[in-house]
Amino acid sequence: MRNKIYLALVHYPVYNKRKETVCTSVTNFDIHDISRSCRTYDIKEYDIVVPVEAQKQLTQRIIGYWQGGTGGEYNKDRESAFKHTKVKNSLEETIADIEKTEGQKPVIITTSAHIYPNSISYSGLSEKIFTDDKPYLFLFGTGWGLIQEVMDMSDYILEPIRGNTKYNHLSVRSAVSIILDRVLGEN
Amino acid sequence: MRNKIYLALVHYPVYNKRKETVCTSVTNFDIHDISRSCRTYDIKEYDIVVPVEAQKQLTQRIIGYWQGGTGGEYNKDRESAFKHTKVKNSLEETIADIEKTEGQKPVIITTSAHIYPNSISYSGLSEKIFTDDKPYLFLFGTGWGLIQEVMDMSDYILEPIRGNTKYNHLSVRSAVSIILDRVLGEN
Repeated sequence: MRNKIYLALVHYPVYNKRKETVCTSVTNFDIHDISRSCRTYDIKEYDIVVPVEAQKQLTQRIIGYWQGGTGGEYNKDRESAFKHTKVKNSLEETIADIEKTEGQKPVIITTSAHIYPNSISYSGLSEKIFTDDKPYLFLFGTGWGLIQEVMDMSDYILEPIRGNTKYNHLSVRSAVSIILDRVLGEN
Repeated sequence: MRNKIYLALVHYPVYNKRKETVCTSVTNFDIHDISRSCRTYDIKEYDIVVPVEAQKQLTQRIIGYWQGGTGGEYNKDRESAFKHTKVKNSLEETIADIEKTEGQKPVIITTSAHIYPNSISYSGLSEKIFTDDKPYLFLFGTGWGLIQEVMDMSDYILEPIRGNTKYNHLSVRSAVSIILDRVLGEN
């Protein structure tokens, strides 16, 4: 359903350039830009998934500044964008919390440059979300992308974004924006 | 025409929060994210418009690092993204250079939260670009947006991006991505 859509940005477990499983650092622009995109497309909750204690604290401090602190006072639009942004310890925690809130496990959506048996088009997913009553969770990887075990958990895998070239290296911030617009936008 | 599309990110003249005309600082993520989005949607040139000498030098140094330096060696995809990213002194310089290259002035496109007599839909603009042989220039403002005199120069003004909410405060990086996808994407 349109009002049970969640999005998580995963910092662990993801691949690095050499395809080793690593934990990446949180990027300030990922907190801001993706919170604002999620607010625009009415995402119920934006989870920043990172298990490292120092990273969690730093991220929570940034979010807190805009949620209730000086930042929120200075810029009300930003305060509104950060209202549903949360820090989570793990993907398992994100999924368990959604199940607790919604009473059922979320349908997991990822994206890939490859075609899988469970690949789905943007319009196909859009139709499904608008008619289904299940919660949906969009997963985005940082670094060199989500590890294979997470990809294997996906119920549906979105086609890669193409823009009339073969270049397929958008920032995660751009990819989130375009995917939310394609699936949920008024266009 | 599809192969004569330019994009400029304007740091001067733009409004600040109090609607004064100011020059904003260049943001590193605007250089990276928008270069990558422009490469994906086959934009002929991405101009970063900033008149301040120190800002121009810093921006040129960052671009140079990825265009030919250590960065380009380390990450070939990023090198490719930065190939057509340039620093320009003013909007007038951007327009004059396009006219020199293409033999005619570009059609200027901006976006606004308001509806104007020359407002255009995404599909309307998309159709126009694919059938027209003129060069097109997309202008994006930083800070609190392009000043009125620049808006008045626009041939067409795109409708605001809506995502089923009234919230309309995307980052410029997200707005660029979504607009390029709506007008030029394979969706």
